[in-house]
Amino acid sequence: MKKSLIALATLAAFAGAASAQSSVTLFGVVDLSAAHVSNGGGTQRVMNSNSYNSNRLGFRGVEDLGGGMTAQFWLEAGMGNDVGTVGGGSLTTASSQMFNRRSTLGLTGGFGEIRLGRDYTPQFWNTTVFDAFGTNGPGSSLNLSTGASGLGSGATTFVRANNSIGYFLPGGLGGLYGQVQVSAGENAIGNKHTSFRLGYAAGPLNVSVATSKTETGVNDFKMSNIGASYDFGAAKVMGYINNSKFGAVKERLTHLGLTAPFGATTLRAGYTQNNTSGGGFDARDAKQFAIGLVYDLSKRTALYTDFSRISNSAGANYSVGSGAANTLGHSARGFDVGVRHAF
Amino acid sequence: MKKSLIALATLAAFAGAASAQSSVTLFGVVDLSAAHVSNGGGTQRVMNSNSYNSNRLGFRGVEDLGGGMTAQFWLEAGMGNDVGTVGGGSLTTASSQMFNRRSTLGLTGGFGEIRLGRDYTPQFWNTTVFDAFGTNGPGSSLNLSTGASGLGSGATTFVRANNSIGYFLPGGLGGLYGQVQVSAGENAIGNKHTSFRLGYAAGPLNVSVATSKTETGVNDFKMSNIGASYDFGAAKVMGYINNSKFGAVKERLTHLGLTAPFGATTLRAGYTQNNTSGGGFDARDAKQFAIGLVYDLSKRTALYTDFSRISNSAGANYSVGSGAANTLGHSARGFDVGVRHAF
Amino acid sequence: MKKSLIALATLAAFAGAASAQSSVTLFGVVDLSAAHVSNGGGTQRVMNSNSYNSNRLGFRGVEDLGGGMTAQFWLEAGMGNDVGTVGGGSLTTASSQMFNRRSTLGLTGGFGEIRLGRDYTPQFWNTTVFDAFGTNGPGSSLNLSTGASGLGSGATTFVRANNSIGYFLPGGLGGLYGQVQVSAGENAIGNKHTSFRLGYAAGPLNVSVATSKTETGVNDFKMSNIGASYDFGAAKVMGYINNSKFGAVKERLTHLGLTAPFGATTLRAGYTQNNTSGGGFDARDAKQFAIGLVYDLSKRTALYTDFSRISNSAGANYSVGSGAANTLGHSARGFDVGVRHAF
Repeated sequence: MKKSLIALATLAAFAGAASAQSSVTLFGVVDLSAAHVSNGGGTQRVMNSNSYNSNRLGFRGVEDLGGGMTAQFWLEAGMGNDVGTVGGGSLTTASSQMFNRRSTLGLTGGFGEIRLGRDYTPQFWNTTVFDAFGTNGPGSSLNLSTGASGLGSGATTFVRANNSIGYFLPGGLGGLYGQVQVSAGENAIGNKHTSFRLGYAAGPLNVSVATSKTETGVNDFKMSNIGASYDFGAAKVMGYINNSKFGAVKERLTHLGLTAPFGATTLRAGYTQNNTSGGGFDARDAKQFAIGLVYDLSKRTALYTDFSRISNSAGANYSVGSGAANTLGHSARGFDVGVRHAF
Repeated sequence: MKKSLIALATLAAFAGAASAQSSVTLFGVVDLSAAHVSNGGGTQRVMNSNSYNSNRLGFRGVEDLGGGMTAQFWLEAGMGNDVGTVGGGSLTTASSQMFNRRSTLGLTGGFGEIRLGRDYTPQFWNTTVFDAFGTNGPGSSLNLSTGASGLGSGATTFVRANNSIGYFLPGGLGGLYGQVQVSAGENAIGNKHTSFRLGYAAGPLNVSVATSKTETGVNDFKMSNIGASYDFGAAKVMGYINNSKFGAVKERLTHLGLTAPFGATTLRAGYTQNNTSGGGFDARDAKQFAIGLVYDLSKRTALYTDFSRISNSAGANYSVGSGAANTLGHSARGFDVGVRHAF
Repeated sequence: MKKSLIALATLAAFAGAASAQSSVTLFGVVDLSAAHVSNGGGTQRVMNSNSYNSNRLGFRGVEDLGGGMTAQFWLEAGMGNDVGTVGGGSLTTASSQMFNRRSTLGLTGGFGEIRLGRDYTPQFWNTTVFDAFGTNGPGSSLNLSTGASGLGSGATTFVRANNSIGYFLPGGLGGLYGQVQVSAGENAIGNKHTSFRLGYAAGPLNVSVATSKTETGVNDFKMSNIGASYDFGAAKVMGYINNSKFGAVKERLTHLGLTAPFGATTLRAGYTQNNTSGGGFDARDAKQFAIGLVYDLSKRTALYTDFSRISNSAGANYSVGSGAANTLGHSARGFDVGVRHAF
């Protein structure tokens, strides 16, 4: 996606006071789909955003500081284009957090990158990168995760963290990559967070581990995971195991996925399993099977369809994304047809 | 207005991953006016947005998919530039609905256009296109409409609909044009909506009919209208009749308008009449006469002034846009002087 | 800063309907810093926006109307990039006021400029222009001001005013400059406002006076100030005196500042003093000393550090910007290290 951005203004020649080359890029994704969702007894027809890729509108830029250093900013807002919302809120809950997806300023050099602001956490990357559906839509492995919302701990740091300072390893380390992130709590429960990620990507192989800790008062919320993918050419297989822990509750999320291109069409399939134990939640296990097709009309525009089915244990009510809430122990099914345009 | 947009980035040459030509456009309108409004006993001096054209900030783009097909997105936010607000909220009521005016993704080809998202409804077009004041400012015909806000039914679908799927007839049908729109209710009262529009425009003539239905619980809210305009060259005459119905209440809104250019100046005049019956609202009739001048400093920038007067029946308190609420049976007057800049 | 903006789209050739030259500019500042703040007994580590320059994202444009006239719009949103917020709200308080910093439309000619919308007030300029820290960060002179928030009067017009009409003197008056601003109250307490500024800038000297009045119900809130700077080359000295008055309460804020460039590094130092009397607030005096360094990596990107210390009288609890509230009579200290990027 990032490669298809449109450069809006590219030359320092336009900017009287700048001595080095600089660019600003406007980019975005509009993804809309019609979905039929059955959660337990009820079924619903809805229009969804975010089902293939996450809807977004962003501004980013890079300045060449000379001496191998650059400064770069990245401002990225989520969007709910079915109703016109932008940022961290919804149609019924207002929010000023417009750039909820990312709001960062970084300095990059031979040492790597120092990055400040609201950014993705190291542990999130291993779930989304190694999910056949990119943690979007009816097939997202996170449909089965209570750990993603902190297992009731109040931790708000699964996907992104406010007030963060991050360090990224530089390129050129023979395939090794890594990220460390700490974020200030600023007196808000569930915000103070430390995380670490280390990976190796070379040729068809990509493998990565991450571990994180969020202070939430008495106990810490902890999450650790490992993910990997291998591209056989005809198909790419991938998967991850993600362990969340808060007090006595432990959740293990296991995902196995596959993507296979056939010309302009790509088949995607994924199996996800939730194993929860402790804290009286031993019956919160669940399984999800999802399959989908993506047809590229161009590099920017694609049609897609997905089908997903969740089997819930007696104490689980996981559902397929949008629609009415599910009831305990009932299965859920989701089907969608949509279009994604990136600009 | 749409023709004066600035193309910010136009060539696929800037976008490494795109194979077809693509463009993104930033556009907008800032319209501010000083107004003197007398509603019943009280009078007030205010600064207004939206009095000649609706204030907006938008991003839109078109991608050529080849084979006569295009994909296009349109993100358009309203603005209250007198106080700096953007989107669906106000200074006192926050909203995350930034792209409240339009938030759509469409695919266009020889078959016409399929468009998804938050969009204008078919029935709204016939009121705004055939209103001498474009349903903006002191002269807007909608100053007299309770049907525009659903006659108390809870329908929120007069101007725009969330979660909509629309189909538009292609061009090249000898002047025939048309639109069908359905929108999902998603458990919100007054959102589930079906609408239809069919028109004919050729030479100086434009005529169009539309009909719509919104589910609101027990009864449906229904609106149907017909509008037409004829351009004699020296002047363009126009008008519409709009019927709203909810339960026993019926509102008929009749508008007659005229626009006449004199060099850089355009005279605008309009007469609007509300006839309401049933449900105990037989005394909610009202009449409005409005006149205004627009002076174009350029294609983008114009100065304007408007005067409007409303006569209310005993059970009506329609008022001239902004300012304090009117009292039953009292007349209202509005006067403004403003400037509109489009970019 | 304004000189380093990137022109995104500059030629009318891109805009079919425009006859005159026109431009739209996207601009902004991302400024993030790590701070250690000690207010009274408590200390806190936080990430801040706005500490060297105010974070912002804006769109502005100018159209040449011919005959020496131009039309220009300016839409500028504040940002809290540590958490991704935009506009007038915060992470915990939502707001639709996106363009909270400025939202204006102006017409400029030989007569000067007429400007409508939400704009900076004349009296604010004299505090920020003649403050060594530009009223940002731990060294801001406004850390010591209760007058900035209206001395409890409800006036909301210190920095900016909604619904304003402003007139600016044209250039070419031999160094004389000036601004008059009136703003409509629109039934909101503390909004109706009149202000005036007159200054003289020539060679190394800049001096300016301003006076303002805001209606708040029974009493008016009044603010008057005088500021001046003189650039000796090796260093620039500056200062201002700002008098706020509401009922029996009078606050005098006095600032003395210095900026001195050493190659790419600039030293900044400031002393600020609050003298309050009347209304039982005679013990609300306070003093602040601040010092800082800015190191320019380029014209757009700078590293900076600041240290500030406040001494509070028994009835004062002024604090160094962010962090927990201070307690009466306790001193406060702040230290930050940050990076600012302008685009």
